Amino acid sequence: MSGRPISSFELPALESLPGDLKERIAAVQAKTGFVPNVFLVMARRPDEFRAFFAYYDALMLRQGGLSKAEKEMIVVATSAANQCPYCVVAHGALLRLFAKDPLLGDQVAVNHRQADIAPRQRAMLEAALKLATAPQTFGEEDVQQLLAAGFSREDVWDIGAITALFALSNRLAHLSEMRPNDEFYTLGRDRGAGPPRPS
Amino acid sequence: MSGRPISSFELPALESLPGDLKERIAAVQAKTGFVPNVFLVMARRPDEFRAFFAYYDALMLRQGGLSKAEKEMIVVATSAANQCPYCVVAHGALLRLFAKDPLLGDQVAVNHRQADIAPRQRAMLEAALKLATAPQTFGEEDVQQLLAAGFSREDVWDIGAITALFALSNRLAHLSEMRPNDEFYTLGRDRGAGPPRPS
Amino acid sequence: MSGRPISSFELPALESLPGDLKERIAAVQAKTGFVPNVFLVMARRPDEFRAFFAYYDALMLRQGGLSKAEKEMIVVATSAANQCPYCVVAHGALLRLFAKDPLLGDQVAVNHRQADIAPRQRAMLEAALKLATAPQTFGEEDVQQLLAAGFSREDVWDIGAITALFALSNRLAHLSEMRPNDEFYTLGRDRGAGPPRPS
Amino acid sequence: MSGRPISSFELPALESLPGDLKERIAAVQAKTGFVPNVFLVMARRPDEFRAFFAYYDALMLRQGGLSKAEKEMIVVATSAANQCPYCVVAHGALLRLFAKDPLLGDQVAVNHRQADIAPRQRAMLEAALKLATAPQTFGEEDVQQLLAAGFSREDVWDIGAITALFALSNRLAHLSEMRPNDEFYTLGRDRGAGPPRPS
Amino acid sequence: MSGRPISSFELPALESLPGDLKERIAAVQAKTGFVPNVFLVMARRPDEFRAFFAYYDALMLRQGGLSKAEKEMIVVATSAANQCPYCVVAHGALLRLFAKDPLLGDQVAVNHRQADIAPRQRAMLEAALKLATAPQTFGEEDVQQLLAAGFSREDVWDIGAITALFALSNRLAHLSEMRPNDEFYTLGRDRGAGPPRPS
Amino acid sequence: MSGRPISSFELPALESLPGDLKERIAAVQAKTGFVPNVFLVMARRPDEFRAFFAYYDALMLRQGGLSKAEKEMIVVATSAANQCPYCVVAHGALLRLFAKDPLLGDQVAVNHRQADIAPRQRAMLEAALKLATAPQTFGEEDVQQLLAAGFSREDVWDIGAITALFALSNRLAHLSEMRPNDEFYTLGRDRGAGPPRPS
Repeated sequence: MSGRPISSFELPALESLPGDLKERIAAVQAKTGFVPNVFLVMARRPDEFRAFFAYYDALMLRQGGLSKAEKEMIVVATSAANQCPYCVVAHGALLRLFAKDPLLGDQVAVNHRQADIAPRQRAMLEAALKLATAPQTFGEEDVQQLLAAGFSREDVWDIGAITALFALSNRLAHLSEMRPNDEFYTLGRDRGAGPPRPS
Repeated sequence: MSGRPISSFELPALESLPGDLKERIAAVQAKTGFVPNVFLVMARRPDEFRAFFAYYDALMLRQGGLSKAEKEMIVVATSAANQCPYCVVAHGALLRLFAKDPLLGDQVAVNHRQADIAPRQRAMLEAALKLATAPQTFGEEDVQQLLAAGFSREDVWDIGAITALFALSNRLAHLSEMRPNDEFYTLGRDRGAGPPRPS
Repeated sequence: MSGRPISSFELPALESLPGDLKERIAAVQAKTGFVPNVFLVMARRPDEFRAFFAYYDALMLRQGGLSKAEKEMIVVATSAANQCPYCVVAHGALLRLFAKDPLLGDQVAVNHRQADIAPRQRAMLEAALKLATAPQTFGEEDVQQLLAAGFSREDVWDIGAITALFALSNRLAHLSEMRPNDEFYTLGRDRGAGPPRPS
Repeated sequence: MSGRPISSFELPALESLPGDLKERIAAVQAKTGFVPNVFLVMARRPDEFRAFFAYYDALMLRQGGLSKAEKEMIVVATSAANQCPYCVVAHGALLRLFAKDPLLGDQVAVNHRQADIAPRQRAMLEAALKLATAPQTFGEEDVQQLLAAGFSREDVWDIGAITALFALSNRLAHLSEMRPNDEFYTLGRDRGAGPPRPS
Repeated sequence: MSGRPISSFELPALESLPGDLKERIAAVQAKTGFVPNVFLVMARRPDEFRAFFAYYDALMLRQGGLSKAEKEMIVVATSAANQCPYCVVAHGALLRLFAKDPLLGDQVAVNHRQADIAPRQRAMLEAALKLATAPQTFGEEDVQQLLAAGFSREDVWDIGAITALFALSNRLAHLSEMRPNDEFYTLGRDRGAGPPRPS
Repeated sequence: MSGRPISSFELPALESLPGDLKERIAAVQAKTGFVPNVFLVMARRPDEFRAFFAYYDALMLRQGGLSKAEKEMIVVATSAANQCPYCVVAHGALLRLFAKDPLLGDQVAVNHRQADIAPRQRAMLEAALKLATAPQTFGEEDVQQLLAAGFSREDVWDIGAITALFALSNRLAHLSEMRPNDEFYTLGRDRGAGPPRPS
């Protein structure tokens, strides 16, 4: 019952990587304290690494109508629908941290319908899950429901594009059997910062 | 974003309960430090409470070929397939505790195929998930695969019956919108007792 | 093309059973004229036998807002969705008897949407089938529709709990390849007692 | 709870029908003792009536490698998958009569995997159900399995074509909400002619 | 990568066919310039050939509320849902020709929701696809939606019956691995006759 | 029945775009003779435009074990499973051109199982479709089947990563209701260059 390797694909030697990849990896390690495995797995294809993280930054760092926690809700809910261990565990941690809520990662992963989220967030996740799991049925009606829930058309694009990026990301993780770092399982589970709960 | 109540059904006053229910509830509180919400929700129907926990004890406390951790794996995997918050969160905690492994609850909940479990356990979960989600297709071939994986016929009954009991349990939890106690989210996440992992 | 045995699991010798099981079995035989196979199959695990039939009695014999025929409709419709031969055939017979309608068992088993049932019963079966086959989607909206159809909240619990019990029961029957007694196929098919029909 | 009409579409007056339809209807009535509702519903479109029954006769009366009972098994199993009341009830009766087995209609309708049928018949129903419910996945492998089970290529055509005809028939019955005649529910349920069964 | 044969079933020699089949085949060749493969494949069973094309003519040549292009939309959309190469390619060509629109065949085959069709045609295809892929859920509500979209009850029958006929046709084509003639791929793709489009 | 706009989202004015986007768009227009709509729709978010096309180039222009036609087969088959009009129509054209086969685009889009492709290509599409539509079930067995079909592990990555990129792309197209340019429907349908076919 010993652990599996980080990926079923061979990882590149860190020292052999192009300079920009080395820098990005060093930066995340400095900030987070460890190197999330997705950086190591994607580094075997430097051009794809660059494109993937450029896309990631364009959407996840973009200033817009969605909060950081809301973006992570989309990632967690759609990745759970795809049963993607890396994305659910890693982004569940980010959701806990951004929302300052130690329960929300698991709640959204298991069943968003019973999570402690606002109605607008439930509408957001319904649309994201529809686009993630039955994209051929997504249409103007879904856009209208998002607008009715208070989102702008740019927000709609963000919701859809984040869903789309993690449709890609989940499949890369399944392709490579990408293993989440152990650290992600416990990040942000500290009760301290969260909002009060019913006893 | 305030929390939801424990259930969408009204809970009985503890002091109004029959004596045997009061005793069982006091016992679990003494042992666990809190009263799992399932006891409070089920107590509104004392006869069903008694039958449910009698069934639970008959299967989950029974000495047989399955370890306590293996029984919880079945509960977590099949409850995750049914997206049942109460059962995934509460029994994910029990799985972490019994397996002395802080990662296993989430791994089995998200995708048992990539969990750090033995081949016999994977065979066990494949059969349990088939019986849980497509019971009409379960048959002698599935039994044979379990026997080939080293289980006895009594073990096969246990695997199937635990799956069946949580098919009931998940549906009661969805019916009543049963909320997991906050305590379950963090139980057993301590690294101390677990086996070594790849860094 | 000779018949299959009652179950793929070995049955216990009747004389070796604990006294309370013997009594229950004798009582049902005296009343019905034969021993339904579910008693023989479950008897191999006396504690589970006791819990199962205690649960069964708590729900199916309970006095409440659902008629006996309505309870059997739930059993037949959800068991048909799970393609469970024992439950469809045995409870189809009970439905015919309780409803005094020789056609209703087959109608509800094949397609409840075209059965000769009242609108409130159709609403009941829609909710039960949702909880049976997609429990993760069951929620407050479904409860509201049942209330709107005239059911009380205690009735809602009964509808959901009966559905849950037969989610368990169907899986035990599939696990054990439980064969319905031949007698069930023809019980209650007599035209005499039924309501008039269109020619 | 009064009965529904024979169809949601208006039926033609019998006396207004073309002579060949009148004759066919009179013949079936003479033979069966009643007019199966499918004749009345289809008669509203005489050209379609003629084509439908010509197709029916070409397949169901054809002398070939399939017995009459085997043809009815295909009809019952695939119609049950489509939850078609008319076809399940009417052809369940024919299956009981042709097989001289009062249990077989319900067994095949509820779950062919547990019916008292021969292995070749199970292979036949597996192929038919695949073509009925996921036709895009049917292919040479399925044909090979039928050949391996002892069927000729002409038998394979018969199995597939009967499945195809009832794919049409089930949809016409759903389109028109075609009600099975009450008589079909009880035909062939007499124990007399059937083979011995386990007690 | 050489082409597959017309069918996995042996074809009859044309000169050995009954006179009426020869005539029909000669007529279609004279009109179309080639013999569509469906005629060759069906000819191996003359009685089924006659019934099939009689049914086809009764529905597809019938004068009623549906235009020829609308009938072909139903065929293309439902055949695409069944992934039937023969019917999608052959009737995609007919749809292009009857609609005088070189894009419509592909649009309806890939995703009718985004095709350049009128709202009434979208309602027609929604109902047809429901009857094609989930016939057990088709009911009075669907009929009412078609009536609300402007169809008569006779049109509803036509929509349903064409859907039913191609449920049969698709399954025969899958059964026989019927290959579309190369000519169908390009028929009607000429821009000339079509309506103006957005640049 | 007039045509729909290119997208449900507003398009940016070409002259307002950053220089690198203008250049890329001018280059594709010079090469192709028209501007594929995906460039216009994606240009509303320049950072996402850059990341998307960088990813596209990294995979689709990469020299490796897959031919250009094989890459397009993956795109067409998985986009057809998602019913994505833009990707099926545009990449169907590219598949026809790269394969010099006027039939292959439609064949792969409708049902790859009956397309004129090599066994290794069928294995490739089976794996791609599994990753596209049920990514949680993709695993080492699928990788082994690809290796057994003659692919290298780098090819496996390419197959999976192209599938993943179009999982994203299909969802962006559905999000934005992206319309394929009319030109794509007819590109590469000329018989000239294709291989001989059975008459």
